[in-house]
Amino acid sequence: MNPDLRKERDNASFKTEVLTHILDGGPTKTHRRREIESLVINDPDFHHEDLNFLSRSERYDAAVKKSALMIVKLREYGISDPEEIYCYKSCVHRGRPEPLDLHLGMFLPTLLNQATPEQQDMFFLPAWNLEIIGTYAQTEMGHGTHIRALETTATYDPSTQEFVLNSPTISSIKWWPGGLGKTSNHAVVLAQLYTQGHCHGLHAFIVPIRSMSTHEPLPGVVVGDIGPKFGFDEVDNGFLKLENVRIPRDYMLMKYSKVEPDGTYLKPPSDKLTYGTMVFIRSLIVGESARALAKSCTIAIRYSAVRHQSELRPGEPEPQILDYQTQQYKLFPLLATAYAFHFVGQYMSQTYHRITGDINQGDFSQLPELHALSAGLKAFTTWAASSGIEVCRMACGGHGYSRCSSLPDIYVTFTPTCTYEGENTVMMLQTARYLVKSYTQACEGQQVGGMVSYLSETPHHRLQPQPLSSRPTVVDISDLASLVEAYKLRAAKLVELAARSVQGELQRRKSKEEAWNSASIDLVRASDAHCHYVVVKLFCAKLGEVGDTAVHSALSSLALLYALHGIAQHSGDFLQAGLLSGPQVTQVSQRLKELLAQLRPNAVALVDAFDYRDEMLNSVLGRYDGNVYENMFDWAKKSPLNRTQVHESYHKYLKPLQAKL
Amino acid sequence: MNPDLRKERDNASFKTEVLTHILDGGPTKTHRRREIESLVINDPDFHHEDLNFLSRSERYDAAVKKSALMIVKLREYGISDPEEIYCYKSCVHRGRPEPLDLHLGMFLPTLLNQATPEQQDMFFLPAWNLEIIGTYAQTEMGHGTHIRALETTATYDPSTQEFVLNSPTISSIKWWPGGLGKTSNHAVVLAQLYTQGHCHGLHAFIVPIRSMSTHEPLPGVVVGDIGPKFGFDEVDNGFLKLENVRIPRDYMLMKYSKVEPDGTYLKPPSDKLTYGTMVFIRSLIVGESARALAKSCTIAIRYSAVRHQSELRPGEPEPQILDYQTQQYKLFPLLATAYAFHFVGQYMSQTYHRITGDINQGDFSQLPELHALSAGLKAFTTWAASSGIEVCRMACGGHGYSRCSSLPDIYVTFTPTCTYEGENTVMMLQTARYLVKSYTQACEGQQVGGMVSYLSETPHHRLQPQPLSSRPTVVDISDLASLVEAYKLRAAKLVELAARSVQGELQRRKSKEEAWNSASIDLVRASDAHCHYVVVKLFCAKLGEVGDTAVHSALSSLALLYALHGIAQHSGDFLQAGLLSGPQVTQVSQRLKELLAQLRPNAVALVDAFDYRDEMLNSVLGRYDGNVYENMFDWAKKSPLNRTQVHESYHKYLKPLQAKL
Repeated sequence: MNPDLRKERDNASFKTEVLTHILDGGPTKTHRRREIESLVINDPDFHHEDLNFLSRSERYDAAVKKSALMIVKLREYGISDPEEIYCYKSCVHRGRPEPLDLHLGMFLPTLLNQATPEQQDMFFLPAWNLEIIGTYAQTEMGHGTHIRALETTATYDPSTQEFVLNSPTISSIKWWPGGLGKTSNHAVVLAQLYTQGHCHGLHAFIVPIRSMSTHEPLPGVVVGDIGPKFGFDEVDNGFLKLENVRIPRDYMLMKYSKVEPDGTYLKPPSDKLTYGTMVFIRSLIVGESARALAKSCTIAIRYSAVRHQSELRPGEPEPQILDYQTQQYKLFPLLATAYAFHFVGQYMSQTYHRITGDINQGDFSQLPELHALSAGLKAFTTWAASSGIEVCRMACGGHGYSRCSSLPDIYVTFTPTCTYEGENTVMMLQTARYLVKSYTQACEGQQVGGMVSYLSETPHHRLQPQPLSSRPTVVDISDLASLVEAYKLRAAKLVELAARSVQGELQRRKSKEEAWNSASIDLVRASDAHCHYVVVKLFCAKLGEVGDTAVHSALSSLALLYALHGIAQHSGDFLQAGLLSGPQVTQVSQRLKELLAQLRPNAVALVDAFDYRDEMLNSVLGRYDGNVYENMFDWAKKSPLNRTQVHESYHKYLKPLQAKL
Repeated sequence: MNPDLRKERDNASFKTEVLTHILDGGPTKTHRRREIESLVINDPDFHHEDLNFLSRSERYDAAVKKSALMIVKLREYGISDPEEIYCYKSCVHRGRPEPLDLHLGMFLPTLLNQATPEQQDMFFLPAWNLEIIGTYAQTEMGHGTHIRALETTATYDPSTQEFVLNSPTISSIKWWPGGLGKTSNHAVVLAQLYTQGHCHGLHAFIVPIRSMSTHEPLPGVVVGDIGPKFGFDEVDNGFLKLENVRIPRDYMLMKYSKVEPDGTYLKPPSDKLTYGTMVFIRSLIVGESARALAKSCTIAIRYSAVRHQSELRPGEPEPQILDYQTQQYKLFPLLATAYAFHFVGQYMSQTYHRITGDINQGDFSQLPELHALSAGLKAFTTWAASSGIEVCRMACGGHGYSRCSSLPDIYVTFTPTCTYEGENTVMMLQTARYLVKSYTQACEGQQVGGMVSYLSETPHHRLQPQPLSSRPTVVDISDLASLVEAYKLRAAKLVELAARSVQGELQRRKSKEEAWNSASIDLVRASDAHCHYVVVKLFCAKLGEVGDTAVHSALSSLALLYALHGIAQHSGDFLQAGLLSGPQVTQVSQRLKELLAQLRPNAVALVDAFDYRDEMLNSVLGRYDGNVYENMFDWAKKSPLNRTQVHESYHKYLKPLQAKL
């Protein structure tokens, strides 16, 4: 092992294994996770050339191969718990998306949730055995997040008892669904249902798109790959144009809504039934944010411990770049963020399962809060993680730009989360809608609960902001509970400001929608502050569960760093709200520097605790043993351009050119 | 043309052509630029398949082909002015880097600047005629920005009158130079010169690395491509390991330093001679920041005018997404930034040429200021542009993630500027060194000049910060000159704070280097504030040169937006320094919203004025005619995965799998 890394590990003040258990949710879970990882990583069937050296078609090919193998092996091993399947799958594809993602994650669950028992008999077993390979075709070229405006139509024809599906415009072509381009032979298609001359809005239909025997596209179906993207090279995100494609009546998913043989439409009993899945996926994304950032920090911090550069003490050898304050200031707040988001992800998952229990018993009361929280936190965490990955990459200097660092790959794989499952700004505005509504209720004297209960605590009767000087400054910047309070008051202030902004616009006789739009900068800002408060609060709450003193101490420093760094980044908000004074903001800067120095000896241990195996990181810079340079050289030598000493372009262009000049 | 875009263009309040002339530097320059662009774009020899559909080896091949053609054609056309060559080259490679970049941009200039007349006779003509293809090999695996610590050695052997070049460690392998991997047969190698038992530091040597007849690597030379990167697919960034490679004595570039036949070393007359090139390249990068952001804004703003989504007024058709305040708030400040950086780039170029005149007459007095300015502005503008490109990409929703948007490509091509030619944080600290030095001089009563003259204006005698209340707030947030003043005072405040921070650390008995490191967060912040001030100041100064009233009005709004947006982002600084009051910060937010609405009708015209032809943008989303969706469909259909209806992986893996389950 690289001696620098060994020293770092020897000097850590806590046992990484203890922290790993906390992150996993207990020693048993750590054990099982490692067991599954070994199962995949030691399996020679899953070994392959570095994907970075392959063309896109080869990468897709390799992914299909691994996915097919994976299905067989999961059954052989009898792994059926969803979390364990997820773990196995992540290992097989090393955290990358794959062509069967939507079959497994959307097509099968949609059948389970929205198909009638008869439809399940018809479709589920073939889909389970991959005779039917399905995807979920919702997004169109012209519409993503705003799904109500999707244009695909399904018109019922009672004479043949069929639905006729059409893509009436170019912009109505289904666009983006994973696995649609080449892999799937069926799709759940979301389309506007027309029957008896009326449109009844979006409904889901099972549409066969390729022949079950030849895999050729069926008549009326124009299907293909949407072309190369920033990342997602392994996935055939596809397009689908439907031209008078007829499907039997019972290919509409009819567990809730129904179309009877004569074309009579029957409404679903509740419109909240599809809510749950959305909330669930957004909650998962919060955990993904933590993982993407944790991987990036692991790579950047280990490399910063191995890399030596420039001088700090004259005459002494070059220091580790991790000793530079600016490097610490880039990486340690992100490390703290990764931990914060991990705990928020755990909370979201627990809350989801708790509330799902309520929902199954007919109690929908907590769904709006969870919906608002998952939307905002999805946006808040993905934005932070997406930009954070890039900070980690650039903190590795030039080598971060090489594919061997894996950081470009982590970025392009992660950054779509800012857009999919609800575009982030739209998500923030959805959360804002809930906040403003709760604020209005609180103003009317109602007690609002959950994470927004603070809106009932603060006085709303005064319309003028109090002068700064008249507010007592009570925040203790070394006390986490006090900082949680400060974040809470900031959020309250910004929610109030946003609500007033909407009111002000309404008073200028704008329509509700226009007023909302004219206040939307303030609304996003309010949601952001609310989410920030929630994250700080949950991070602090987690500390109460940590028994090990050494780990508690390290995590407390991280939590304090997270909270103070956020204040430094948004000092204007805290100053303007009179929550902190100018000298206190200066103290925050000073305290931040002390925290960086305090965390420095534990930095490597804190990333080791994430427990990413080298095979999962796939990063030369982030290797556990720190043997960076020799492995970078080995990796480069395998690059396709080095298969011959002289590239053919020399003979084709350069040699003839020399003759010409 | 798309009717939305036509309407936007009809409604603009100014003539785009007038603004284009200002951006180009006059109608003649616009005319000539367009002439050269047409020359390339209408040339069938330069037409080729979309690079996004090719493998890396094919992309490299296509680039070498175009570069070879380009050399021939430039001579045919007699284009020899450096600016015109640059323009032609940018068109040929559509703004992408290419394998001959370092030959043209570094190898040939180094020969001109550092070779003796005899060496020029020996090397220049063969290099001009591409018999010698060269690169510039400075960076090593273990060292980038901190070049003093490079490890490659060149040891003089008087017995044979040769230098013996070696890569003594793995980390000393030359790594990253463009064109080194496959293209070049020579390299200027930077190595530690050893002669007569002494090391004399870094010197430049011409090292033949591949055979001039077969292009095979020469004995002792291990050379190749460093493997795939985030971008730069067309460039063979390479590695070079030297094992006792001998070159004749006169292959050391000896215009300044010399090694005599017996091994006697002669020092160069000045150590500032290589300063100029660095300053020049960093100044160019400021212009690159403007261009990258201008292209990205062009794509995102045009697409936002074409894309319709959701609802603003109940019952009305879906609005253009450019009508959403949050979309405007993402894009318009970046548009303003693109303009600001463009004008800063023009200023840097003019200043460089002015000061070069002085330097040629032996006057180095302004070099330190220019050096500090170019370092800081390189960092300031590349960071802003790099993150700005990603904001533009995400503002295009899912389609921004497709390679057809060109935004991923712009990002990966541009983002290395944050690292190369001096890592940004290191650059900021270099500027800080100049600022602190100037501050100290000002405190000692010396008058400091140029962009830092404000440090002589503010009183430094008091050691305690004044209480906020005692400072009169004089800033008028609608007056640009007043805002420039506010930025200046903020910079002065933060430079003072950083200098005091260093002093404070020194008083704690830290060494100079450690004190500097412990204050480095403050130092970077001071540089950032200084650069921000310079940009606001130069943008405002440019307005004075604009005669056309309509254009002046549009640019003034942009400048105001740029200045106010910066204040909103850093309101804590302005509040803490007592430059703005809380209510004023609220007014800034309000004024920003008004400016967004005010700029909205001119947004498309403001990006049209950048005058990027579709061929240069290469973006389906950013097309001038706005026909986005049909062209996206056409593009996708050409994707390699669509060459067959059924991908071979179906027969290889999926079909057999179905049989197994």
